[in-house]
Amino acid sequence: MKLYNHSQAPNPRRVRIFMAEKGISLPMEEVDLMAGKNRTPEFLAKNPSGGLPVLELDDGGCIAESVAICRYLEGQHPEPNLMGRNPREQAEIEMWNRRMELELFGSIGQTICNTHPMFKERLRQFPEYGEAQRAVVQQRLERMEKELAGRQFVAGDRYTIADITALVAIDIAGRMANITIPPALANLNRWHQAVSSRPSAKA
Amino acid sequence: MKLYNHSQAPNPRRVRIFMAEKGISLPMEEVDLMAGKNRTPEFLAKNPSGGLPVLELDDGGCIAESVAICRYLEGQHPEPNLMGRNPREQAEIEMWNRRMELELFGSIGQTICNTHPMFKERLRQFPEYGEAQRAVVQQRLERMEKELAGRQFVAGDRYTIADITALVAIDIAGRMANITIPPALANLNRWHQAVSSRPSAKA
Repeated sequence: MKLYNHSQAPNPRRVRIFMAEKGISLPMEEVDLMAGKNRTPEFLAKNPSGGLPVLELDDGGCIAESVAICRYLEGQHPEPNLMGRNPREQAEIEMWNRRMELELFGSIGQTICNTHPMFKERLRQFPEYGEAQRAVVQQRLERMEKELAGRQFVAGDRYTIADITALVAIDIAGRMANITIPPALANLNRWHQAVSSRPSAKA
Repeated sequence: MKLYNHSQAPNPRRVRIFMAEKGISLPMEEVDLMAGKNRTPEFLAKNPSGGLPVLELDDGGCIAESVAICRYLEGQHPEPNLMGRNPREQAEIEMWNRRMELELFGSIGQTICNTHPMFKERLRQFPEYGEAQRAVVQQRLERMEKELAGRQFVAGDRYTIADITALVAIDIAGRMANITIPPALANLNRWHQAVSSRPSAKA
């Protein structure tokens, strides 16, 4: 197996953190997004969506989409469990992972793509829309503050894939959209410090 | 168990079709979105995101997010299988379901929310952004045409949750964004007719 990776992009970081938590080590090949290497016919044959990461299996088959890759790795390496041990837990963790992805990471991505100079020549930007999405992110962080009042991690009392998604989203928001966690959001800051200090966060 | 439902919205339809394919019947309670019944404190206690559907379990716990609900139901009623029988199949089906969700359904949703008069007073609309997303949908349909040349269904040779997501997305696009499948896209039309003629499509 081999992971097509980009060391600075948030989605590959999701999978790298997931692997680090499980102690999985795989050969990685860096794909130069800036040079458009994810748009070559060779890469599009692996993932027609053009995104990273992609997991190439030993028979040449490819799995794209970070959460799908994580689910495959969870099946191969069940412990430590990060996606649920029974149907109920799997559903609850997936619900929280999706909330972090669709309501937090998604709005952060829209903010970055529509306002960051890096995307000016790569996409048609709608800066007003991007700023409206920035406001959505702030509201979401305030909701997380309340959600994290009653528990240690995003999906409950243990670290799961939902924490990984939230961590990479918040970190890329800080790096590319000047969005940082307001100091008053004490629970969110406590959570961010806890998940950032795990060795996997450096993966 | 009980499903909080809305008979016209696409996400509840995803779960209803999934249930119909498995022969699952559940009590349903219609939530009047137009009257804002999904924003009451009672409903937000079930799903703080305010979205439908929500599956309420017998102990009062709630699972929101269509795909998470489907995964729970798949665990309870494994046959007919719609989300994969082993880690590899599960990952491949999830990859395709996510492509349909993030690249097709997502852009359709953005088109509708930013251009349809129904959302004028409920959201801040960015019509230019909505029109740009409409163009993305057209490109995605053309890509589906090529993808469906080599196989019968979205994720391969059998019907899965990825077909359900694509079906509800394309049908709501026709109903609320005037997006229809161009007649020249023969494979896509063939697929749409096949999945629409299954009894589950009426659920």
